[in-house]
Amino acid sequence: MPETNKFMARAIELSIENIKNKTGGPFGAVIVKDNIIIAQGANSVTKNNDPTAHAEIVAIRNACKNLNTFNLSDCVIYTSCEPCPMCLSAIYWSRINTIYYGNTKSDAANINFDDAFIYEQMAKPYDQRTVKMINIMHQESLEAFKLWEKDTKKIEY
Amino acid sequence: MPETNKFMARAIELSIENIKNKTGGPFGAVIVKDNIIIAQGANSVTKNNDPTAHAEIVAIRNACKNLNTFNLSDCVIYTSCEPCPMCLSAIYWSRINTIYYGNTKSDAANINFDDAFIYEQMAKPYDQRTVKMINIMHQESLEAFKLWEKDTKKIEY
Repeated sequence: MPETNKFMARAIELSIENIKNKTGGPFGAVIVKDNIIIAQGANSVTKNNDPTAHAEIVAIRNACKNLNTFNLSDCVIYTSCEPCPMCLSAIYWSRINTIYYGNTKSDAANINFDDAFIYEQMAKPYDQRTVKMINIMHQESLEAFKLWEKDTKKIEY
Repeated sequence: MPETNKFMARAIELSIENIKNKTGGPFGAVIVKDNIIIAQGANSVTKNNDPTAHAEIVAIRNACKNLNTFNLSDCVIYTSCEPCPMCLSAIYWSRINTIYYGNTKSDAANINFDDAFIYEQMAKPYDQRTVKMINIMHQESLEAFKLWEKDTKKIEY
């Protein structure tokens, strides 16, 4: 079995255990550094009342905790399903640069998860999205950004 | 001052406090239900070593904890900056249906945050993204989805 399949097999195993344990949706993920699994995650949206607790987000948070960093640029993620836009963006923010995935967003749509729908929403003009987006107090909000720019002791990421 | 500005003013205040406290980036958010702030959040990426700890994600997690639910369909979010794709998707998953925002993703790009870049990445074909996406073990992964479909006791979301 190639190394990549070994790691994906663990992500799949987590997705199946998650159904049996009634923890959340059928999704699992592992994060690998130097060919070793350094963190794992499974969907716990319903168990933890946390709509952000997708497998990839849980795995990223665990990996960062384990490695004591907010930058996972030397890591790879294996996820049992193609990341939704939330998780794909989290992967970008974490600086992980390679994603292995099993199921696709179409497979997720077939079992009634909104991944594909949210990808479609992202691509629409704001006034055609189902979520209303209203811009207010732009000038007042900019004050914080000006303060940030001037701050010489800030930690960038 | 209109009610909406009162809530946005609090989100802006959180974004400014966050710079002064060295907690993370210049971003704050509040979640409102029945005209009352029921949760708030500020960016704590660098302080907590958590690349997913954007203001909106923190606020959503706090709101769900406070209300003991994973569904915020009766809530509105006020955020000092237009949500990045991670946070916009988290808002969709949480079922919040209205977003008031102050700064835009272009403003965020101007102070070196990747929000606009990640939106652009989402719109690209997979083979043109900076993050590599590799599909493996599709059939094996599908087993979990089949099991999920057959599970009559699952909690859907």
